[in-house]
Amino acid sequence: MIEARVLKGFRDYLPEMMIPRKALVRSLESVFESFGFSPIDTPALEYADILLGKGGGETDKQVYRFSDHGGRDVALRFDLTVPLARFVSQHQNELAFPFRRYHIASVWRGENTQKGRYREFMQCDFDILGPAAGAADLEILLTIRAGFEALGVKGYRVHVNNRRFLNALLSGLGLTDKAPAVLRAVDKFYKIGAEKVTAEMTAEGIEADTAARVLELLGLKDGGGKAGITGKAIFTALERFATITGDNSDGVNNLLFIFKSLEEMGLLEHFAFNPAITRGLDYYTGVVFESFIEDRMEFGSVCSGGRYDNLTALYSKTPVAGVGASFGLDRLLALLEDKGAVSKIRTHSRVLIFNLDENLSAWYQALAAGFRNAGIACETVLEKKKLGQQFALAEKMGIPFVVIAGGDEKASGTFNLKNIITGVEQKGLTLEQAVAQVNELK
Amino acid sequence: MIEARVLKGFRDYLPEMMIPRKALVRSLESVFESFGFSPIDTPALEYADILLGKGGGETDKQVYRFSDHGGRDVALRFDLTVPLARFVSQHQNELAFPFRRYHIASVWRGENTQKGRYREFMQCDFDILGPAAGAADLEILLTIRAGFEALGVKGYRVHVNNRRFLNALLSGLGLTDKAPAVLRAVDKFYKIGAEKVTAEMTAEGIEADTAARVLELLGLKDGGGKAGITGKAIFTALERFATITGDNSDGVNNLLFIFKSLEEMGLLEHFAFNPAITRGLDYYTGVVFESFIEDRMEFGSVCSGGRYDNLTALYSKTPVAGVGASFGLDRLLALLEDKGAVSKIRTHSRVLIFNLDENLSAWYQALAAGFRNAGIACETVLEKKKLGQQFALAEKMGIPFVVIAGGDEKASGTFNLKNIITGVEQKGLTLEQAVAQVNELK
Repeated sequence: MIEARVLKGFRDYLPEMMIPRKALVRSLESVFESFGFSPIDTPALEYADILLGKGGGETDKQVYRFSDHGGRDVALRFDLTVPLARFVSQHQNELAFPFRRYHIASVWRGENTQKGRYREFMQCDFDILGPAAGAADLEILLTIRAGFEALGVKGYRVHVNNRRFLNALLSGLGLTDKAPAVLRAVDKFYKIGAEKVTAEMTAEGIEADTAARVLELLGLKDGGGKAGITGKAIFTALERFATITGDNSDGVNNLLFIFKSLEEMGLLEHFAFNPAITRGLDYYTGVVFESFIEDRMEFGSVCSGGRYDNLTALYSKTPVAGVGASFGLDRLLALLEDKGAVSKIRTHSRVLIFNLDENLSAWYQALAAGFRNAGIACETVLEKKKLGQQFALAEKMGIPFVVIAGGDEKASGTFNLKNIITGVEQKGLTLEQAVAQVNELK
Repeated sequence: MIEARVLKGFRDYLPEMMIPRKALVRSLESVFESFGFSPIDTPALEYADILLGKGGGETDKQVYRFSDHGGRDVALRFDLTVPLARFVSQHQNELAFPFRRYHIASVWRGENTQKGRYREFMQCDFDILGPAAGAADLEILLTIRAGFEALGVKGYRVHVNNRRFLNALLSGLGLTDKAPAVLRAVDKFYKIGAEKVTAEMTAEGIEADTAARVLELLGLKDGGGKAGITGKAIFTALERFATITGDNSDGVNNLLFIFKSLEEMGLLEHFAFNPAITRGLDYYTGVVFESFIEDRMEFGSVCSGGRYDNLTALYSKTPVAGVGASFGLDRLLALLEDKGAVSKIRTHSRVLIFNLDENLSAWYQALAAGFRNAGIACETVLEKKKLGQQFALAEKMGIPFVVIAGGDEKASGTFNLKNIITGVEQKGLTLEQAVAQVNELK
């Protein structure tokens, strides 16, 4: 006998977790498609050189990499951005730009497993490739907002910043060359605190005064800034920053365009300007953003992203710019679960048809088909059992209605329907009447 | 520069293939859920001993197997049945039986790539675990039928047989011990022909006369049998077989139950009794079936499966019986494509909002939101371009309607809508009027 077990860092999804995950995915897919994003898929397994590029980073060590049957050096994808870059380079002539795509798929990283981190997890990316226009930045932000609305998440806020604005700010402090290191340090502010971020900056040779000024400008003095700047104050702040960045204000202008558009659309309340959002990754070059749920800040950002100038640099001479974001599906699901907003149903069935006589199988199935045709998921008990056992099954599965019918009912063409939550049983219903009853209970 | 390429046997899905694949999957998911099947998921990567069991088979050589970072012997799943057996063994106490589950996911096999076979492909399995009742067999067959109906596939027919019936038949010919070998040989009849199947049987030490009698009984004499037995003739044939199998007729009785139920439900036309269907795999023990589309027989079976007695033997002392089937998604998609029944759209968008003035971004987005709220997918042009270029984009993307509007339209709150297929442009429409126009075109 082999012990039934899964690998460390991997997990099974039972129906009660898979049904809400699928519902989440479907809601987001609907939103993406309503904005004109189209689905793509790429192989789970790719040439290692494609996925790792020049390589050598922290990610490399976590990648599942091996030799296949043909001796090829292959690896499992660890994100959906690198495959997108390869995909766009390879199919440039087949695609129409701007190319709006979404990709929801599993990725694998052999990282240390702790605090709800898994070695297999699902990413949910959506990007607009092609135009470098602020309108694309705006559209990605509107898509995020529509996603949260579709999921029924309350108290979400998207914190927006711009890398060019940050670089201009740091240039003003004489930190042009050190900007990437500073941004990486600041990105960790809420994880490691002001002291350590300052230490990282001084380790880079930055004066303590200058480091303090960086934190002050980014609104991080005294550990503040987590809430970002909201409402009308956004425009005051941006105007103040514009006087600091002077001729180097395209980042500020991008932010002004975005926030003015959001204000015009009456959506400003869902967004914040947050100068402390930097996103650690080097490849962001314009707008960057993270999203938080106000009463669950400890879950961190549940949707992040930004603009990048040249996605395809590794694989193609034609530069492709874009802007995109990624919903953290697992984190979002855990957060919704924590809020009690996930109903852990085991089945979609709303009606269970009891089995009082195994010779009536065809009739039971015909009844079930009647409910299904009316849009009601329905399952049947497959073996004759004691009534008590059949009620217990309905309860265990969480199915609210049961149909109790035998030979007499078949002859009359009507049957009894019982709501097992209220205990009310109605006798002699037609299919039509039963459908109406089931539809009455939401 | 790294050459952008995918591994041999792998492929990218561009929107025009991914949109129909997703539509196919969603249709089947709806059918499964309407029957009370619930989704599950299992890891792509598992311990090699779990996936390969005692191992040594043909499959083993095709499995992607390697050592992970912790030195564990791991492999990528090559089907969804082995993971299901492990899953059910591991979670037996958490599941409610009968357990109806579906699982749609990628599997990997490093087999030779030819004739549209890929090393990464999607399986679509659905099973009822628990009761050994014929009612479960019937329900799986009804689910297959509902699946074909939902997909709009015409001319499908599910060919049904029973392993116990076949074994009884072979026992009657004194071939009890040789039954598995005979069934494996017969399973290849349509691939390799009568001569080679007979040769395989005689190589097993079966007399030529007996081998001929096997083919005759299974309706394969003169190469016939592909059409199966349909309509009322099913019952005549089963009665004739019952006299041959005598006391050993539980297989025939199962088939009688199934076909009588289908007849009672008025669905017999979609099914055939086909004594030549054996399914090669050893683990089937009861009903077995394959499904064909009458004008595309050359595609082979697009949905197959059967009943098995003990799925969990490798991992658990508690036997779990079940019955299940699998739609061949890729084959089905290729078949529908061959029939011209796949519309290769690049986007779900039905409306493209032109950009006549980049300062109107927020208004364009608000217009787009209006269409989206009315259930119409809609995208916007993100940069101001010549009108000709914007029309060309609509055409390239296959978007039927365009909104042409600038500052005057914003002031009036109305806009122009053009159907680029008919060329008809309507001026001064409100959002409501435009929505009605778009909805008029299916």
